[in-house]
Amino acid sequence: MVHKRVHRKRDGRELLLYSWAPLEDPPLPEPEEAPAPSSHLRYHPLRRAWAVYTPHRQGRTFLPPEEHCPLCPSRPGGFPTEIPFPRFQVAVFQNRFPAFVETPPAPPSLPVPTAPAWGRCEVVVYTPRHTGSLATLSHEERLLLLWALRDRYQALYALEGVRFVMPFENRGEAIGVTLHHPHGQIYAYPFVPPLLEREAEAFREGPVLLELLPHLGPYAVDREGGFLAFVPPFAHFPYEVWVVPEAFHPGLWTLSEGEMEALARLLGRTVARLDALFGEPMPYVMLFHAAPKGEEAHFHFHVEFLPVLRDKGRRKYLAGTELGAGAFTVDVLPEEAARRLRETGLGPF
Amino acid sequence: MVHKRVHRKRDGRELLLYSWAPLEDPPLPEPEEAPAPSSHLRYHPLRRAWAVYTPHRQGRTFLPPEEHCPLCPSRPGGFPTEIPFPRFQVAVFQNRFPAFVETPPAPPSLPVPTAPAWGRCEVVVYTPRHTGSLATLSHEERLLLLWALRDRYQALYALEGVRFVMPFENRGEAIGVTLHHPHGQIYAYPFVPPLLEREAEAFREGPVLLELLPHLGPYAVDREGGFLAFVPPFAHFPYEVWVVPEAFHPGLWTLSEGEMEALARLLGRTVARLDALFGEPMPYVMLFHAAPKGEEAHFHFHVEFLPVLRDKGRRKYLAGTELGAGAFTVDVLPEEAARRLRETGLGPF
Repeated sequence: MVHKRVHRKRDGRELLLYSWAPLEDPPLPEPEEAPAPSSHLRYHPLRRAWAVYTPHRQGRTFLPPEEHCPLCPSRPGGFPTEIPFPRFQVAVFQNRFPAFVETPPAPPSLPVPTAPAWGRCEVVVYTPRHTGSLATLSHEERLLLLWALRDRYQALYALEGVRFVMPFENRGEAIGVTLHHPHGQIYAYPFVPPLLEREAEAFREGPVLLELLPHLGPYAVDREGGFLAFVPPFAHFPYEVWVVPEAFHPGLWTLSEGEMEALARLLGRTVARLDALFGEPMPYVMLFHAAPKGEEAHFHFHVEFLPVLRDKGRRKYLAGTELGAGAFTVDVLPEEAARRLRETGLGPF
Repeated sequence: MVHKRVHRKRDGRELLLYSWAPLEDPPLPEPEEAPAPSSHLRYHPLRRAWAVYTPHRQGRTFLPPEEHCPLCPSRPGGFPTEIPFPRFQVAVFQNRFPAFVETPPAPPSLPVPTAPAWGRCEVVVYTPRHTGSLATLSHEERLLLLWALRDRYQALYALEGVRFVMPFENRGEAIGVTLHHPHGQIYAYPFVPPLLEREAEAFREGPVLLELLPHLGPYAVDREGGFLAFVPPFAHFPYEVWVVPEAFHPGLWTLSEGEMEALARLLGRTVARLDALFGEPMPYVMLFHAAPKGEEAHFHFHVEFLPVLRDKGRRKYLAGTELGAGAFTVDVLPEEAARRLRETGLGPF
């Protein structure tokens, strides 16, 4: 059974500790209060999208030494971390340098539309251990992480102004990660972001993913208890992998206990495969795409891994055509990527 | 007067030499034929966008030593470059590793829609000198470059299947540039790419940029002969700069001779400013956004510089929220970026 302990940090931010057994340690001293967030939204009239302006984030913690890792457990008399407890399993807390906040300042008046950066940003610490990854967590740790995300989905979608909730993980310095401790993030957006608008439109027109699944033979990479891992034939990134339930689910919150177990195993094996490919941890962005609010009837839940290496030590750059036109060029054929990922020799294929 | 010499390379690719005085040197030996392009298009059913799959590009030339630079002039008895002439000013040739080609192979039949990668990709060599940038070219060189681009716009939009033509420059290893010689590229797309669809939609609803221009006081960076350089209040990249004509123009091809001169000067000064900011060449993507075919009545021509440094030696990464949701986070306020760029002390502001 998952236990959840709620702690209010001294600066008012919420810290949630998820564990398989109750944790009752008294809290240790906490770090200094965070700078006040100064975010607001601005509308790009040509890209037709909201962006969030966060000048206070320029000063965020950047690759601290291990002894000053803010995501490790605190020790009595030691460096005060974000988690003022000597033990935890999975910890979730409100980001110290958030893009979205529940009490945003009034936005400035500008020549383009602006809005308060209302919403919520959370950090999800996967494990008390400073090193590791989704691939090296134990099954119980990964499963607890998924239950924690499920709890956060429910809590954040219960907030009235939230339109879309996205757990994600940026992994590796090549993607700009500033803290090495295994962790992800959750953004609760006050708008449906552009790529999700597109996906929701597609799902309203038809069950795109469910119709595709039977035709993915050469693209399949791995399979487990009702989930398929595959390289999409339309991948935009080399070695991109999607993990998709084979029955309809709008989000993590509708999965059975057995499906939660299967997803935990398959996510772990997928990261292990990506790491085996070039014999080094693969830098990637991992995204949970669940239904935006109001799209639960059609939107098919999926997890996307977007790795940024196109070969060992050689990264894929987004440049002129991607950044300036939104048209991707892809050097690695998805069917070739799938074959190489299958051949890493983990799992049933 | 601009002179244009057309040379057909031995593998059939076209090479165009633009100069202020006729160039009549006989051609020198050429390099081996390029591998046959194997591109095709695939449709991403959830992002609702075409991408181009180019496995032959994995083997493209990667940071060759200067003596093997394919963009330098050839020397008799020397390394055969892409330009088999001892002298040139601006050279344009069909890319040896193109994404789009005029005779694409038939696309494979896949579980998602596919199409031939019809179109054209060109390389634009700014100068015969191996080092330099838009900032260090002479005014005459920059002006010749603009006239060459204007000629290419007209030639490429004259091709029936072309829907959008985009000259662009990827600059700096931080953006993945594989050749240092100052150069840009031109893509002639067989579809209107997603970001341009959005821009065209916006311009069909109203003259967004023309209405904005009078309100850009704190955002202005520089000005010259009917063009304004400014940091958009809705910039997605730190130190992003747009160069925009103050009267309506759908593309380079409608500018007066005086406006061509002004644009040449302002582009040069803009790059000089970006380079002065951190005292090192700024890595960026520069885009020419002219009207897609059929949008000439409303689409307002503009040049975008998207620099990827958010501070000296510290890059802006696109990660979870940008790549996975299309929602940008911006650390540097545009009005602060504009102030810093004005204070570099080049030009009238």
